[in-house]
Amino acid sequence: MELKRILLATSNLRKAEEMKRLLEAYSFQVEVPKEEIEVQEVGSSFLENAYIKAQAYYERYRMPTLADDSGLVVYALDGYPGVFSSRFYDHEYGGKEEVKTSKDEANIRKLLRLMEGIKDRRAKFVAFLILSLGDAGYWSKGECEGSILEEPKGSEGFGYDPVFQPEGMQKSMAQLKSEEKDAISHRGKAIRNLIKILRGGKL
Amino acid sequence: MELKRILLATSNLRKAEEMKRLLEAYSFQVEVPKEEIEVQEVGSSFLENAYIKAQAYYERYRMPTLADDSGLVVYALDGYPGVFSSRFYDHEYGGKEEVKTSKDEANIRKLLRLMEGIKDRRAKFVAFLILSLGDAGYWSKGECEGSILEEPKGSEGFGYDPVFQPEGMQKSMAQLKSEEKDAISHRGKAIRNLIKILRGGKL
Repeated sequence: MELKRILLATSNLRKAEEMKRLLEAYSFQVEVPKEEIEVQEVGSSFLENAYIKAQAYYERYRMPTLADDSGLVVYALDGYPGVFSSRFYDHEYGGKEEVKTSKDEANIRKLLRLMEGIKDRRAKFVAFLILSLGDAGYWSKGECEGSILEEPKGSEGFGYDPVFQPEGMQKSMAQLKSEEKDAISHRGKAIRNLIKILRGGKL
Repeated sequence: MELKRILLATSNLRKAEEMKRLLEAYSFQVEVPKEEIEVQEVGSSFLENAYIKAQAYYERYRMPTLADDSGLVVYALDGYPGVFSSRFYDHEYGGKEEVKTSKDEANIRKLLRLMEGIKDRRAKFVAFLILSLGDAGYWSKGECEGSILEEPKGSEGFGYDPVFQPEGMQKSMAQLKSEEKDAISHRGKAIRNLIKILRGGKL
């Protein structure tokens, strides 16, 4: 369909930057909201949280709105941090962790603490997208399999990137240049799956 | 997009019949699954449950799959029965109810028991649809506002239809002919919203 302008339903600047880069490669005109909206991400799934965010921004701005909800799923931790990825440091599972320099750093510190001595280090990044036109829209997902490193490496990206090593690579996600990351990342895949649907193509 | 054949991700024959009728009006070729798949509807939202069903059937049949999750939201009951609508009789909220003739009858009996003496009888039917092509797809929703009757009326439809009176009508949903129901029902609206997205039109 003729859909050129998309509003990003996020106040996370690093995520907005990444999504803008991914979408502009397909000639979308990407806007970021002028005001942040307080959204209660109370859903029990990435899909539900993406929907909640998309609708909150759609209600305010009344234009096609794209929301991402994504996170890290660690097999040995029963899928945690999962939907709690961005505020894992403050979640009761596994005990809370103090924020010293940044939330990302506190989240990673907690994850590495819980993974101490655990041999099964398999994990995946998962992203769900909801594009909302109000009462209907599009959805897509993307996954990136990998494993949790023993310690952080690299300074690109954000979130858990420094401790996540994508399958088949000898680098952490945070050691990849943005084009390398986009080619294999959960969010990159989810965006490309969304583009295919928008273009009416088969997946 | 060129999408003509759709599999319905449901084993509920009354629901399948209704969705078939709604979709065939738009020249879709609708198939029902040969085998029922046991799906754990563990999501906390209609959207999530629709997604879980769509993906379960998509994994098995590998063709465009449409799932509906819908229910009755009663304002005075904090939104219950909500995602528990089809098995409300067996849910702990408000006490369990024995199945005598059918689950629908037990669900309605429990609802009327909980609504005894309650003046605020406002309620709405809500439907969410997920159309899955695997890693991406479409979503839509539809709502129908109304109120809970004091006792069941009519024998058309299914579920809570006999005790739900749509706004502005003097009949229960179960007293409407199928064309009348489709014109105002949550599922009718959700299907029409989905069709608009599939046709690339604005909502």
